[in-house]
Amino acid sequence: MEWTRQQRYQSYDHYTAQQLLELQSQAATDPVQVRYHLHPSLGLLNDPNGFSYFNGQWHLFYQSFPFGATHGIKSWMHTVSEDLVHWRNLGLAVAPDTKFDSHGAYSGSAKAFGDRLFLMYTGNHRDADWNRISYQVGAWMDKDGQVTKLDHELFVNPPHFTELRDPQLLVKDGHYYALLGAQRTADKTGVADLWESDQLESGWHEVGEVDLGQSDLGYMVECPNYVDVDGRAVMIFCPQGLDHQTAPYQNIYPNMYLTGQDFDLTAPRLVNPDETLTNLDEGFDVYATQAFNAPDGTAYAVSWVGLPDTTYPTDDHNWANVMSQVKELHYRDGHLYQTPVEAMADLRHTHHATIFTGQPTVIKEDAGQQFELQVTIEPNQAGTLTLAGDQSLEHGVFLNFDTTAGQLVIDRAKAGQPVAEDHGTTRTLTVPGHQELKLDIFVDHSLVEIFVNDGYKVATLRYFADQAHGQVAFTNPTKATGTLWPIKPY
Amino acid sequence: MEWTRQQRYQSYDHYTAQQLLELQSQAATDPVQVRYHLHPSLGLLNDPNGFSYFNGQWHLFYQSFPFGATHGIKSWMHTVSEDLVHWRNLGLAVAPDTKFDSHGAYSGSAKAFGDRLFLMYTGNHRDADWNRISYQVGAWMDKDGQVTKLDHELFVNPPHFTELRDPQLLVKDGHYYALLGAQRTADKTGVADLWESDQLESGWHEVGEVDLGQSDLGYMVECPNYVDVDGRAVMIFCPQGLDHQTAPYQNIYPNMYLTGQDFDLTAPRLVNPDETLTNLDEGFDVYATQAFNAPDGTAYAVSWVGLPDTTYPTDDHNWANVMSQVKELHYRDGHLYQTPVEAMADLRHTHHATIFTGQPTVIKEDAGQQFELQVTIEPNQAGTLTLAGDQSLEHGVFLNFDTTAGQLVIDRAKAGQPVAEDHGTTRTLTVPGHQELKLDIFVDHSLVEIFVNDGYKVATLRYFADQAHGQVAFTNPTKATGTLWPIKPY
Repeated sequence: MEWTRQQRYQSYDHYTAQQLLELQSQAATDPVQVRYHLHPSLGLLNDPNGFSYFNGQWHLFYQSFPFGATHGIKSWMHTVSEDLVHWRNLGLAVAPDTKFDSHGAYSGSAKAFGDRLFLMYTGNHRDADWNRISYQVGAWMDKDGQVTKLDHELFVNPPHFTELRDPQLLVKDGHYYALLGAQRTADKTGVADLWESDQLESGWHEVGEVDLGQSDLGYMVECPNYVDVDGRAVMIFCPQGLDHQTAPYQNIYPNMYLTGQDFDLTAPRLVNPDETLTNLDEGFDVYATQAFNAPDGTAYAVSWVGLPDTTYPTDDHNWANVMSQVKELHYRDGHLYQTPVEAMADLRHTHHATIFTGQPTVIKEDAGQQFELQVTIEPNQAGTLTLAGDQSLEHGVFLNFDTTAGQLVIDRAKAGQPVAEDHGTTRTLTVPGHQELKLDIFVDHSLVEIFVNDGYKVATLRYFADQAHGQVAFTNPTKATGTLWPIKPY
Repeated sequence: MEWTRQQRYQSYDHYTAQQLLELQSQAATDPVQVRYHLHPSLGLLNDPNGFSYFNGQWHLFYQSFPFGATHGIKSWMHTVSEDLVHWRNLGLAVAPDTKFDSHGAYSGSAKAFGDRLFLMYTGNHRDADWNRISYQVGAWMDKDGQVTKLDHELFVNPPHFTELRDPQLLVKDGHYYALLGAQRTADKTGVADLWESDQLESGWHEVGEVDLGQSDLGYMVECPNYVDVDGRAVMIFCPQGLDHQTAPYQNIYPNMYLTGQDFDLTAPRLVNPDETLTNLDEGFDVYATQAFNAPDGTAYAVSWVGLPDTTYPTDDHNWANVMSQVKELHYRDGHLYQTPVEAMADLRHTHHATIFTGQPTVIKEDAGQQFELQVTIEPNQAGTLTLAGDQSLEHGVFLNFDTTAGQLVIDRAKAGQPVAEDHGTTRTLTVPGHQELKLDIFVDHSLVEIFVNDGYKVATLRYFADQAHGQVAFTNPTKATGTLWPIKPY
């Protein structure tokens, strides 16, 4: 359906409980709904927000429009976990109910201070003439999950930016910093911007634009996140409209990262940064990644699996998008690695494992749509590994590998209902040639996450296949070993 | 809060989505909300309905009033499981939206026929003068969860019953039978009643009252269920107002069972039944148990943990009641056994087990509120095992055992916020004396389920303790062995 502006911005009071109950049932019963990843119980999910550790639990909020698959008036929905894998839905946490966020409680971050969690986010307000006024706002959440918003804005956006949002709250040496994405008013270019306060609830002032060593960051930077990864400063962000000459990407908007020696908060700048931007995920659908350092220092990241300005087949069922699994970040040998968290292995139905070796073709005729597959393909092999395949392997998610040349091509053209074909139906990953290729693949009904060579690269994609297409097979006999585990009920 | 009749029967359109979202958040964030048992995502849960196996999954519906802790206008909410332990909420399935069920889609059962599930339930209608008209109605659910109601009633209640409801659909030799609970008009006494049809969707007629060999079944029988348990006919039902001389019970309404040689559907009668009624659960809070035979013949039962006409502390937080774990039923040595299903063991966090032996006092100082405890107490021991205890063990759920006399007294008087104290704060279970006592105890934040001597008896209770009271300990050194497992994130 087409949503008018008026429909998208109707208050939550406009809808009836009956409508909401029907929408929830619709999202829950859709056979392509993911099972062991965080997903919306109804409506649209987008950016992860407030990823944090507080009160003995992991907290992850997400941007939500509860009434359909459109970017209407947004709230924060709240989920908690004890293992970063099982997420319990605690429901609506930050509603658009003040003058600062009347037209959307937009993205932001969270940080624990004692027995309270501080939420910092962008409030979206529209005046009577539909002019946008953006505020950076704050709220405290107590241990019972009660959210109390500050009665004032932290700061109003300055005129030299047309957009300034998605604050990531950082603390260093008793100072509070907010890293935000922005578009400069002067030349409509994108930039990351840093603010500082000594008091948190007030006293915010601009430190200045963050020098990332890049001349082109497109027309807008969204969702910048700084995280320390094994002593390396990593900056993850979404440079919308980035020139494809600056760094290649195929998705409508890229989610890139840069690493550097340090994040200098005074200058501010990324010290001795990488020369070129790198795609955080080499698949089709990752965006708005949020990362943070846990109390023990470990860096974790989680992503919206979905893209702005993109329609998905589930839109017709009034829900859209899912959350990626949480990934642990590491930095070694000059490279950023992303790996599943330890508790993901708890999901394996070890009693029903399929172990293969030699030169298999069919790995499992009916693996269903809920499994983990670890496979190591020997050097100098070429062929296709099909996931979610029909009997003839004409349809499925095709992983075309060539371990001589060192290439993995992910092809979703014939996986089922099409998605964003304007932006291509394949993604090509370069891997070392003449070496074995290790894949750790998670399939969840309409989501595939592929960890390549122990997390050296990651590729994520949605697919919308007939759920009866459950074959996992090589097209030709391939020298490979591995294990397929069904994923347990969740 | 006090609910008026008008408030309880307002249509779901009367409430706004905003209200529903707030209520859902309230039920989800309550620290006493159970975690690994099926629970309402908002409002009130009561009878299990439509417990069945269909389309490769277990299905369990439940009676719901979504807008608060009161018995307002009811719907069926739908959940599915692959292991009888992990339940996925699919939301509203049967809404009160026809003339037959306009004032409540009340309790009933479900049975798979090919690729469709037939739901048979009692529709509650009130006319303009608030006179009740009850219909027995049917609906088909397809594999996608879409429910299509029949456009006609299966039958209207006959005048010789003031109440007739909760149909359990049975099939034998190509005939369809419905077992219902009833109150006779003539003398206002309770009875189970049987109906028959050769066509399912029509042609229903009364076979007659079921002779259970009992002269007293109180003033109303609710939720009768017949199930075959290892070749023994078992009839489970709730005889409201049962004389305490007929069979002792302490809860406001009992959930009893009788066994017999066979269930004769023609007479109809329970053949050579037990002489006396037995409590299905010897705890405080089990009611409206629904049982059925799975395709492989195994008998499973699940219960509402909650009672009619009873308030619970969570009422103030606008939600009430939870579902018991599913129990497997067996019959041996002339006795009905109830045991956890196999997959419950998957919930054990085996890496964090506490194993004890000798003469322990403290088993675990802070076991939290989410664990399984298996303990075997040696013969001729007396003392108290405390669950959810504070440091001094003055508060907690007390299990007072005497393995000389053969007695287990469950005392929740000092567990926390009181519940239904008018009906006593202790329950006494008689067990064999001079023998070891085996307990398998499941604790879930505000719910305790105790399996005694491998399921010879079961006792279930709600408790409402300070969640920081996590001590599990014997008051005095006790000869006992056992294991405590934290339950995994769910």
